[in-house]
Amino acid sequence: MSHGYLSDKSAHLARLKRIEGQVRGLHRMVEEEKYCIDILTQVAAVTKALESVSLALLTEHMNHCVVQAARAGDDEADAKIDEVMAAISRLVK
Amino acid sequence: MSHGYLSDKSAHLARLKRIEGQVRGLHRMVEEEKYCIDILTQVAAVTKALESVSLALLTEHMNHCVVQAARAGDDEADAKIDEVMAAISRLVK
Amino acid sequence: MSHGYLSDKSAHLARLKRIEGQVRGLHRMVEEEKYCIDILTQVAAVTKALESVSLALLTEHMNHCVVQAARAGDDEADAKIDEVMAAISRLVK
Amino acid sequence: MSHGYLSDKSAHLARLKRIEGQVRGLHRMVEEEKYCIDILTQVAAVTKALESVSLALLTEHMNHCVVQAARAGDDEADAKIDEVMAAISRLVK
Repeated sequence: MSHGYLSDKSAHLARLKRIEGQVRGLHRMVEEEKYCIDILTQVAAVTKALESVSLALLTEHMNHCVVQAARAGDDEADAKIDEVMAAISRLVK
Repeated sequence: MSHGYLSDKSAHLARLKRIEGQVRGLHRMVEEEKYCIDILTQVAAVTKALESVSLALLTEHMNHCVVQAARAGDDEADAKIDEVMAAISRLVK
Repeated sequence: MSHGYLSDKSAHLARLKRIEGQVRGLHRMVEEEKYCIDILTQVAAVTKALESVSLALLTEHMNHCVVQAARAGDDEADAKIDEVMAAISRLVK
Repeated sequence: MSHGYLSDKSAHLARLKRIEGQVRGLHRMVEEEKYCIDILTQVAAVTKALESVSLALLTEHMNHCVVQAARAGDDEADAKIDEVMAAISRLVK
């Protein structure tokens, strides 16, 4: 079953490949005992990249699933919004 | 040159390996078009794992570099604290 | 014009009154030169309280404005979702 | 007993006064049922302002308490760093 984010699927996959490479780079930095602050800067960059992935996925989820649920009826809308708000809370914290 | 986090080096490396695997898992989830909310939950888990790596590295940096700088003199202390505060700001934002 | 969060209006107002009191408490702590770490703990509590207000307001916005826009048509839905995603991005960062 | 952040005390107090005013502004916005997204933007501004207060207090704490503890001995340094790392963790989460 498709979940509606096919439009940007290859962009998401490319981003995640890049993040995987960045995490491998972090491993190498620790392996080679690079300066701690430089590693922290790099971890912050990976965190920002993951945040962008989250926001992109969330946008597609809103555009598809939430909109469809809203149109399907009040109960469907309530359930989808509860679910997405729980996901947003996890992102914010 | 060693930067003082050797004590936990293998623990950091193991954590980063696990995170790399988690990012690969995210790639697979998008590839297989898993449900968006489940992917978001997984991204939040990776972000938390990276946060733990950051805090662990920062603790070691404080215990070694910052303490040494404090003992070396006021200028050394000031420089190291400016640097670490910039890194902490990036973590907080 | 009403914006749909009337249901919990008095709860939001009560929370904001409490937060105002907490900020006044922070002022007093700095005035009396309380221990820095204790002040930081208190700032973190206020930040969490504001985060709860944000999430509560966002939930109501989703339940009312976003659902209505989704039902009004594709353009209305797109515009509301762009707007709410911008707000969520500001919360996440 | 002084805790070493006297240098910027009046700046901290002025900032907290401003934040208190901003929170009062939020109360007014909810009272008058302003548009949700505008209130969320304003909450984000208050959160950023509190974050700046935290980072400023933390910088002074590092410059004074942490440096002094580092010079006092290993046990003192360990205790202060444990304490400050716990505070930083609360800021990051």
